[in-house]
Amino acid sequence: MKIKTIGLIGTGIMGFPMAKNLLKQGYQLNVHNRSQESIKELVKLGARATESPAMAASSADAIITMLPDGEVVEKVIAGSDGVINVIKPGVIITDMSSTSPDTPRKLQSLIHDKGAYLLDAPVSGGNVGAEEGTLTIMVGGDKEAFEQMMPVFKAIGKNINYLGESGAGQITKCANQIIVALTIEAVSEALVLAQKSGVDPNIVRDALMGGFAHSKVLEVHGERMLKRNFKPGGKISTHQKDTKIALDIAKKHNLYLPGTALISQLWNAASAEEGGADLDHSALIQVIENMSETKLNS
Amino acid sequence: MKIKTIGLIGTGIMGFPMAKNLLKQGYQLNVHNRSQESIKELVKLGARATESPAMAASSADAIITMLPDGEVVEKVIAGSDGVINVIKPGVIITDMSSTSPDTPRKLQSLIHDKGAYLLDAPVSGGNVGAEEGTLTIMVGGDKEAFEQMMPVFKAIGKNINYLGESGAGQITKCANQIIVALTIEAVSEALVLAQKSGVDPNIVRDALMGGFAHSKVLEVHGERMLKRNFKPGGKISTHQKDTKIALDIAKKHNLYLPGTALISQLWNAASAEEGGADLDHSALIQVIENMSETKLNS
Repeated sequence: MKIKTIGLIGTGIMGFPMAKNLLKQGYQLNVHNRSQESIKELVKLGARATESPAMAASSADAIITMLPDGEVVEKVIAGSDGVINVIKPGVIITDMSSTSPDTPRKLQSLIHDKGAYLLDAPVSGGNVGAEEGTLTIMVGGDKEAFEQMMPVFKAIGKNINYLGESGAGQITKCANQIIVALTIEAVSEALVLAQKSGVDPNIVRDALMGGFAHSKVLEVHGERMLKRNFKPGGKISTHQKDTKIALDIAKKHNLYLPGTALISQLWNAASAEEGGADLDHSALIQVIENMSETKLNS
Repeated sequence: MKIKTIGLIGTGIMGFPMAKNLLKQGYQLNVHNRSQESIKELVKLGARATESPAMAASSADAIITMLPDGEVVEKVIAGSDGVINVIKPGVIITDMSSTSPDTPRKLQSLIHDKGAYLLDAPVSGGNVGAEEGTLTIMVGGDKEAFEQMMPVFKAIGKNINYLGESGAGQITKCANQIIVALTIEAVSEALVLAQKSGVDPNIVRDALMGGFAHSKVLEVHGERMLKRNFKPGGKISTHQKDTKIALDIAKKHNLYLPGTALISQLWNAASAEEGGADLDHSALIQVIENMSETKLNS
């Protein structure tokens, strides 16, 4: 079955630019969101506004959710006014939010009972990747559904991979978030060391680009740190949620993840000041800076 | 003054391929090394073997040292049989070993007293970068000497940067090593999480390449981890030395580097088994794996 009509639930910082790219590729879009601002914009571009998640889903071949966390996803899909109540056999539900792998695993049998399919397909690449349609998409779940969704994924992303059964996409996203968080910490410590020992961190970053210390984080987040531009991008609060998911998985499988555990504490410290948790995750460098200037009462 | 004859002291895992690239570019080379195997090879390629560091230095326009640590560098340059005893005005000494920034700072005035110049110019890129002549070179010290050495640096490296006064090269190398170490830890934790929760870490690595989690370490060291290829490359013992330098700088400037401190302990754990410290630094993943399977007596 070729997918023509998509019910998109959640048109926030990620869902909104994804919706624009889907409209651009000729998909019919039923949109639903709590706040109405982005919905009005999308209606101007040809989307149809709907009153509830169930209404967004009712005439759609595929449903995409892009929501803040797993709790909201469960409510939108399996709640009293949820998608599950109107779902028809053969329809594909794709949750692109970042959640625990337990969220899709819990929902899967409910959805299979209706003859429908479920994919967990979280993304990486942030707001910019969503705007440019270059998101990395990490997919787990029903493989035949993955193949059907491929043209849709290609409208919003670039590096698209099937990782395995339900939850595998979320586990991969979790691995992604561990690496990004620890690399932000790595770049923070390196730039603070350079700065405080009197070497210009701007030139240090230039010198390290392209070598073994090279990373996308050194490029993107390193620049943000040096320009003191902490407008998100990816929020500390979001990364804090993802780090908690990683530590929950670690607890479940008895894994030793000392770097991830350390980062979870640094996110806490970064959130201590009002508004801290809403800054870009590259603002982690300020924790390292502040701790390197701690003032104690004597 | 155009540099024609170079005294190269230290022709080990890094110095040997550097020497070959210098010979290829037409430089006359006086070589000295403790073990004679690499010296014999280089003599076949046109180098002149010498009996001591001082003899390697005596007729040279420039001297390059590539040695295991700062203590050896100080001995070779300022020791009783050292380079300092034969050095002529205008000669440039370039130490390309990785040392504390204190090493060049200590040596600088001794060398200036002879009318000679000193650069600290540690490298990144490992054995492969040295073979290919694509090393990243991070230079501190006498700026006019840096400009004179530029053609020599171009024979062995690619990304060549002047960072500032004496020690600035070593501080930058230290920043490099912090980032590489923490990124190795990041990739280790992510791959162990994927593996132990049942997702193929090979596909996870593929899915993350090119996205925000992308790094040279994910590419090079990630592949080594997955192929269980821990032949060095960069040894754990070397990175352990560099991490100690980072923590010494942190102590001096009262810096808070919790990730670097954590890594220093993980290097210790990685060195617990006979031969562990001689493995490639990507073998750090085995500490994470082993700790995730710790067996306790009951």
